[in-house]
Amino acid sequence: MGNRPLDKLNDALENSVLVRLRGAREFRGTLQGYDIHMNLLLEDAEELVDGEVTRQIKTVIVRGDNVVYVSP
Amino acid sequence: MGNRPLDKLNDALENSVLVRLRGAREFRGTLQGYDIHMNLLLEDAEELVDGEVTRQIKTVIVRGDNVVYVSP
Amino acid sequence: MGNRPLDKLNDALENSVLVRLRGAREFRGTLQGYDIHMNLLLEDAEELVDGEVTRQIKTVIVRGDNVVYVSP
Amino acid sequence: MGNRPLDKLNDALENSVLVRLRGAREFRGTLQGYDIHMNLLLEDAEELVDGEVTRQIKTVIVRGDNVVYVSP
Amino acid sequence: MGNRPLDKLNDALENSVLVRLRGAREFRGTLQGYDIHMNLLLEDAEELVDGEVTRQIKTVIVRGDNVVYVSP
Amino acid sequence: MGNRPLDKLNDALENSVLVRLRGAREFRGTLQGYDIHMNLLLEDAEELVDGEVTRQIKTVIVRGDNVVYVSP
Amino acid sequence: MGNRPLDKLNDALENSVLVRLRGAREFRGTLQGYDIHMNLLLEDAEELVDGEVTRQIKTVIVRGDNVVYVSP
Repeated sequence: MGNRPLDKLNDALENSVLVRLRGAREFRGTLQGYDIHMNLLLEDAEELVDGEVTRQIKTVIVRGDNVVYVSP
Repeated sequence: MGNRPLDKLNDALENSVLVRLRGAREFRGTLQGYDIHMNLLLEDAEELVDGEVTRQIKTVIVRGDNVVYVSP
Repeated sequence: MGNRPLDKLNDALENSVLVRLRGAREFRGTLQGYDIHMNLLLEDAEELVDGEVTRQIKTVIVRGDNVVYVSP
Repeated sequence: MGNRPLDKLNDALENSVLVRLRGAREFRGTLQGYDIHMNLLLEDAEELVDGEVTRQIKTVIVRGDNVVYVSP
Repeated sequence: MGNRPLDKLNDALENSVLVRLRGAREFRGTLQGYDIHMNLLLEDAEELVDGEVTRQIKTVIVRGDNVVYVSP
Repeated sequence: MGNRPLDKLNDALENSVLVRLRGAREFRGTLQGYDIHMNLLLEDAEELVDGEVTRQIKTVIVRGDNVVYVSP
Repeated sequence: MGNRPLDKLNDALENSVLVRLRGAREFRGTLQGYDIHMNLLLEDAEELVDGEVTRQIKTVIVRGDNVVYVSP
């Protein structure tokens, strides 16, 4: 099965990631943790809607089933 | 897997959180509890729709599968 | 995990609750029972659509996966 | 957990119920059976769309995950 | 639980059924089989969209989670 | 339960099938494989959107939960 | 069951694939890994929306339940 997608999340810990959610929402922030549901823990994040920064967020727990993709 | 996202919810107990739901709805309130489905128990909450406060709610149980993110 | 959200439903038994469903629908009524899926049994309920009372209902079984939140 | 919601369906067997589905659809008919998924068996039912009767149906098996609520 | 809904599908084998799907689609055809997911096997079916026949289909396997109701 | 729907997929192996997906998308192609989730493997397929051929595809793996129906 | 669809993903490892997601989004890139949920790991990918390239992405983890199809 090649490199497991979730293992790649592990490699991205402590690094900046782009998280695309369903709808027009994205987060950029530092990946501090994840679990098998792809729930994500981000720190020092900014929320973007339609590409515009709408919020600065110190800590955010994203529920996995809203995630479309994560890019380290 | 770094810090588990749900553990971060545990750290947020008794503190104010912002909860973004699917659609245009948000809650701000004090996190009193949660479970593995990310069902949440908030107290002294206000409900916001499109950023406008629409209700003051003493106690609210939010069903987890509506949650997009939680920010402590 | 603090106070479990479903335990709070237990505390609300025999009391009036507000139930918000997906879409524009709400119920107000007396909570007579629930289960782990958050299926709810309400009595002496009124159904509201966009805040307008549309029906008086003696007994209603609400399927849990339509529930956004319950407020005791 | 009070009275289990599905037990209330049991009490409603052989009686007329109103079944609200996702979208604008409802059924009124006699509840002849159900299962744990809330699949329902109705007889002598009428289908309503936006409150207008669109069909008379002798027997109908409704798939549970379309059900919003059942009112005996 | 009265008569199990899926048992009623069994009674309908080899008979004509109406199958309503999510969206505007329906099938009328002879029920040749089903399984516990409510996947259906129909033969000599016609597909209707908004009540208009759009296709004649010799054999069709319908995936259960699209089914709203089945009427024998 | 009559003929199991998935067994009918087995009979269709190596033959041309029409696959209707959610939305306006269809595939016509040769069924080379499937699994219990109704994931499908098609070869020498054409993709149609609103009935218009939009792509010729040598090999395509379709994720089962997008499938509405398969017609051999 | 013929050739298992996921086995075909295995054959596609290290090769270029087209991934169609729900909505108007596609990725083209090199498949580096996958898992049983059809979570995908792509490298040297480009994201397309309505057929227009919108981003070059070195590494992307796509959550499986957004996938409509994968074409090697």
